[in-house]
Amino acid sequence: MQTQDMRKVKITEGFFKELQKLNEEVSVYNIYKRFEETGRFRAIKCVKDEAHKPHIFWDSDVAKWLEGVAYILVKKKDDRLEALAREAIDDICANQLPCGYFNSYYQVYAPEKIFTERTEHELYCAGHLIEAAVALRQCGVDEKLYGAMLRYADYIYERFYVKKDAAFTTCGHPEIELALVKLYRESGDKKYLDLADFFIEERGRREEEHYGFTDGRYDQSDLPVREQREAKGHAVRALYLFIAAADVAQIKGDEGLIAACERVFEDIVNRKMYITGGTGSTYHGEAFTFAYDLPNIFAYAETCSAIALALFADRMAKIENKAIYHEIFERVVYNNVLAGESKDGKGFYYVNPLEMHENIYDYNESLKTKLYCPLPERVEVFDCSCCPPNLIRFVENIGSFIYGFDEDKKRIFVNQYISSETEIAGAKVKISSEMPYGGKAKVFFEGQGELLLRVPSWNGGVVMKVNGKKVEPEISDSYISLALDGDFEISLDFKMVPRFVYANEKVWYDCGRKAVEYGPLVLCGESVDNGENLSSVRITSLSGAKVKKGEFFTLEVPAQKMRTSSALYSYEAPVPEKFTLKLIPYFSWANRGKGDMQVWWL
Amino acid sequence: MQTQDMRKVKITEGFFKELQKLNEEVSVYNIYKRFEETGRFRAIKCVKDEAHKPHIFWDSDVAKWLEGVAYILVKKKDDRLEALAREAIDDICANQLPCGYFNSYYQVYAPEKIFTERTEHELYCAGHLIEAAVALRQCGVDEKLYGAMLRYADYIYERFYVKKDAAFTTCGHPEIELALVKLYRESGDKKYLDLADFFIEERGRREEEHYGFTDGRYDQSDLPVREQREAKGHAVRALYLFIAAADVAQIKGDEGLIAACERVFEDIVNRKMYITGGTGSTYHGEAFTFAYDLPNIFAYAETCSAIALALFADRMAKIENKAIYHEIFERVVYNNVLAGESKDGKGFYYVNPLEMHENIYDYNESLKTKLYCPLPERVEVFDCSCCPPNLIRFVENIGSFIYGFDEDKKRIFVNQYISSETEIAGAKVKISSEMPYGGKAKVFFEGQGELLLRVPSWNGGVVMKVNGKKVEPEISDSYISLALDGDFEISLDFKMVPRFVYANEKVWYDCGRKAVEYGPLVLCGESVDNGENLSSVRITSLSGAKVKKGEFFTLEVPAQKMRTSSALYSYEAPVPEKFTLKLIPYFSWANRGKGDMQVWWL
Repeated sequence: MQTQDMRKVKITEGFFKELQKLNEEVSVYNIYKRFEETGRFRAIKCVKDEAHKPHIFWDSDVAKWLEGVAYILVKKKDDRLEALAREAIDDICANQLPCGYFNSYYQVYAPEKIFTERTEHELYCAGHLIEAAVALRQCGVDEKLYGAMLRYADYIYERFYVKKDAAFTTCGHPEIELALVKLYRESGDKKYLDLADFFIEERGRREEEHYGFTDGRYDQSDLPVREQREAKGHAVRALYLFIAAADVAQIKGDEGLIAACERVFEDIVNRKMYITGGTGSTYHGEAFTFAYDLPNIFAYAETCSAIALALFADRMAKIENKAIYHEIFERVVYNNVLAGESKDGKGFYYVNPLEMHENIYDYNESLKTKLYCPLPERVEVFDCSCCPPNLIRFVENIGSFIYGFDEDKKRIFVNQYISSETEIAGAKVKISSEMPYGGKAKVFFEGQGELLLRVPSWNGGVVMKVNGKKVEPEISDSYISLALDGDFEISLDFKMVPRFVYANEKVWYDCGRKAVEYGPLVLCGESVDNGENLSSVRITSLSGAKVKKGEFFTLEVPAQKMRTSSALYSYEAPVPEKFTLKLIPYFSWANRGKGDMQVWWL
Repeated sequence: MQTQDMRKVKITEGFFKELQKLNEEVSVYNIYKRFEETGRFRAIKCVKDEAHKPHIFWDSDVAKWLEGVAYILVKKKDDRLEALAREAIDDICANQLPCGYFNSYYQVYAPEKIFTERTEHELYCAGHLIEAAVALRQCGVDEKLYGAMLRYADYIYERFYVKKDAAFTTCGHPEIELALVKLYRESGDKKYLDLADFFIEERGRREEEHYGFTDGRYDQSDLPVREQREAKGHAVRALYLFIAAADVAQIKGDEGLIAACERVFEDIVNRKMYITGGTGSTYHGEAFTFAYDLPNIFAYAETCSAIALALFADRMAKIENKAIYHEIFERVVYNNVLAGESKDGKGFYYVNPLEMHENIYDYNESLKTKLYCPLPERVEVFDCSCCPPNLIRFVENIGSFIYGFDEDKKRIFVNQYISSETEIAGAKVKISSEMPYGGKAKVFFEGQGELLLRVPSWNGGVVMKVNGKKVEPEISDSYISLALDGDFEISLDFKMVPRFVYANEKVWYDCGRKAVEYGPLVLCGESVDNGENLSSVRITSLSGAKVKKGEFFTLEVPAQKMRTSSALYSYEAPVPEKFTLKLIPYFSWANRGKGDMQVWWL
C-alpha cells in the first residue's frame, strides 16, 4: 500500500485542525523562542564560544523544527515564520564546509574528531537535516538546504561507503538510514538507497561497535538487523532503525528483512507496549526491557518513541496493509503522542507515566535525590529537547497517515477518520468525523474505484448508510469494502461506548485492574477531579457511565472509594463508599497543575 | 517496666531454641569464616597493607560478632569459638593506642584524621566495640576488652565532652549513644551517661554538621532530637539514635525527650512500616521516605533496621509498658528480622522486599545496569556486612525480650510467648509455647505476685485454664492479669486462624489487596510452590484454608488464577481458574532457589 502524503491532503476541521492551529499559532513559535534562548539557533552560526558549547544533538532540534515549519508553510502563508526558518537555513548553508559536511558542534569545537565518535549523534543530526531539507523542498519552501544536504549526503557516501575511512561504520543513533531513504525517494538517486541499505546491513556485524553504556543491545548492534528477533535497547534508536529497515525492505522486496521487521513489531505490540502505545519502559537507557515489564509510576514511554512507533506502523502498512498497523498508529497517536504537549501548546512531556503520585516527585525533589522520577507538570524545554519539535512536525504531517492506495490506485483506503479531503487517481474523497470523541464519520466519495473503510477494533457495532440508505456492511480483515462509481455519501456510525480493557495475566503491574477506553482514547483520572487516594477507587461496571463535555471530554463513572480506618494495617475489610469517578483522555492530563493521576483501576 | 535480661532467661525448647542452635553451630562460624576471608579479622591486627585497606566500619562487624559470641558462651561452653573470640579481643587490646583510642582504619591508615571526619563511622565502631565489651563482661567471658573500652570511652569523654577539641560534635552514624548507656549501666559511672546525653542533646544544633549526601534529615541532624516530629533519614541511624534517646529519657525521666520518642515511634508504626515490620522503604540513603510510601518490589527494609525497630520498641516499653510495643516487636522479629537469614544459617539478606520478580533482577544483571534491585537469593557476606552479625547477636539475646517486671517486682509480665524459664523476685516462671506456628502456650508460675500475660492482637479469642480449670480471662490493655500465690499452670489457647490484613487506603501499592497472616506470621507465596503469574492470583476467602506442615509451615488457600488470552490487552475480562495457593511464612522465602514471591494479593 502507498500512502497519500500530506501535501495532497487538506485537514478541514475538527480535532486535528484545532491541534494544528495551536501548533501553528503557539507551539512552533514557543519552541523557536526556547531554542533561541537556550542557544540552539546561535549554535548554527558556528561562532566559537567555549562558554556556551552546543550539545552534540542540537542540530537535530533545529532540523526537526525546520521540518515542522515546512509542513506549516505548505498549508498557510506565514512570513514571520518563514523568515525565521530562512535565517536558520542561511546559517546552516553559510557554514557548511566546502566538502559538504555540517555539524555545529564538531566543525567548531572538535574538527579533528569528525567521523571518529560513533556514539555522538553526528549522522543522527545529519539525518534530521536531510529530512528537513527534503520536507522544505517538497513543501515548496526552500531548495537551498536541499542542495546543501545533497552535498552533505554525497560526502557521507564518499567517506562511509566508497573510501570507508571514517572511524566507525554505523552511527550509534539510527536516523540517517530513514533520512537517506527519503532523499533517495526525492532525488531518485539510488546511491542514497545503497547507503541506507549499507548502514542497515553493516549494523551488528562488528563487536567493537556499540556503546560502552550497556552492551550491543542498547543501540541494536548486537546482531545484524535482519537477524533481530525482538525489540530491545533504546526505544527511539530501535524504532528509527526499523522504520528505515521497513522502508528498504519494502523498496527492495527483501523478505528476510521484512520478516525481521514483522518479528520486532509483533514483539512490541504483544509484549512491550503500554496501553497508551508507549514503549521503552525504563529510563535506564530509555529502553525496551523484557516482556510484560510495564511499570506505571516509573514508566518512561518517551514521546519521541511514541512518534517513532507510529511511523514504524505506517511503514509496516506500506509493506503489507493490515488493519493492526493503523490500530496501533491510532492508539499511540491519540494517547502517548498527544500527551506530549500541553493544552496551551507551550509545555511538553518527554516521559509519559501511567500513574502519578506527586508526593513521590516532591520527596525526591526536596532531597535532590536525582532518582528517576517522571515530572508532574510539562515544561517548555528540556536539555535534551528532541520531543517538542518532533511533535510539531508529526502533528503538522498528520495528513500523510489518513489515506492509502494501491499502486494502480484502484483501491483507496481510509485508515484514519480524521476530517480531511484529498484526491486520489481522479477520485475525490472527503472525511468529516467526530473522532476521537464520537464514532460518527461521513466519507464523501466522487469518482470510480474500490473504497476500503477501516473498522476500528474498539467499535461496538457499526451502522452504515450509503447515500442515506442503510446498508449492512461486510467486514473483511477489519475493512468495509465498497465498489463505487459516482457520487456517494457514506455515513458510518461506529458505536463508541466506554469499555474496560484488561492486561495480560503476565503484566504484574496491571493484573486484576482495568483501564477504561472510549473509542481510540485511553482515559485516566486525576486528583484535581477525584480527590485523594485514586488507588482506592474501584469500578465494577461501566453501564451507568455518562459522557460530559466541558473543558475536557469527561466520562463520569459510578464507582466506589474503598475506605479504611486510619490505621496503617487492619483486620477490618475496607468499606466501599459511593463515588463518581471522573475520567478524562489520558492525553489531557496534567493541564491543571500538579496532582495525582491513574490509568489502571481496581 | 524493667526487662529480665538474657543471662537470667533460659531458652528451653521450640522455635527460638532451634534458631539459636543453628546460629551456634553454623552461622557464627560461617560469618567468622567469611569475615576472616574478607580481611576483617586481619584488619584488627593493625598491620598496614595498602593493598587491603579495611573498610571504615569493619571494626563494628567484628564487634557485633563478638557480642553474639558472648551471648552464646554464657549459655554453652565452646572452646573453639572462645579461642577465636579471644584472639580477636587480644588483637584489639594489643593494638589499642596508649591514649585508649582504637580504630583499625584510622590509626593505621589515617592517624592524622582521627576525630576529624564526622561521616566516617569512627564513634559508630567505638559504640559497637563498647557493646561487645559490656556483653563479654556480663556473660563472664572476658574482662580485658571491657577494661580497654572503659579507657577508650574515657578518651572519647575527654576529647568530645571535656576538651571539645575533636573536629565534630556528634557522629554521623548514631550508635555510640546507646553503647554509652550500656556502659553507664554496667559501670555505674555517670560520666558515660552524661556523654550519651551530650551526644543526643548536641545533635541537630549545628547546621554544618550533616552529610553532604542529602541534607540534615539523613542523619537526624536537621533538628535537635527532642524537637523531632517524624521518622526520617537513614532508618538504622534514626532508630539507633532513638533507642539511645529512649534510654536516656527513661533514666532521666525527661518528659520532653520521651514525647519525641513517642512521636517518632507513632509515625513509624502508623505511616512508615511494612506489614513485615520493615522500615526505610528506599535504597536511596537506606531511608524512611514519606507517609504511606511502601513499594513492595523495590522495598529496602534492611535487616539491621528491623533489628533496630525491635530494640526501639523494647526501650519504649521500658518507659511505659504498652502492649503495642511488644506487638511491634513480635511483628518485626517474626517477619523482617528472621527473613534476614537462610534456613541453613549461611545466607543473609540485607534488604527484604515484599515482592520479587526474578526477571527484573536477571534483566538488570544481564545489562549490569547497577540499578537498585533486591537480590532473589541470600548471600554469605556483603561489602557492608552489618546485618549478619547483627542477626546473630539479636537471636542469641532473644531471652532479654520475653519477661518484664515492675521495679518492686510485684508485677511480672510475659510479653513474648517464647519457650523459656526464668526466676524473678523469687518467683519461677516457665513458658512452653507452640509459637509462632500454634496459639497454645503454657505458663508455669511458682511464687507470689501479679502475673500479666499479653494477649496478642492477632488472637481470635483466648481460652484460659488455670490449674486445669477454665477461667474467663479479663483482658485489660491487652493483658490478662492474675494475682497468684503458689504453684500454677496457666494454659492459654489463643485462637490462631489465618486472617486477611488490609492496608490503609493511602498505601497505593497495596490498596485493594490483602496480606494473609497466621498468628504473628505474615505469609507469602512463592513461584516454586505456585507457578508463574503470582500477581494474577485472587483470594476471596480464607474459610477453606488448611495448615500443612512439611519442610515449611504451609497454608493452603482455595484461590483463583485469573487467566487471560495471550494478547497484551483485551476487551475480554480475565477468566478465573481454580487454584490452590500455597503460602509459607515470609521469613522462610527464598530458601529453594531463585523465583518470584508475593505478600499482597488481589
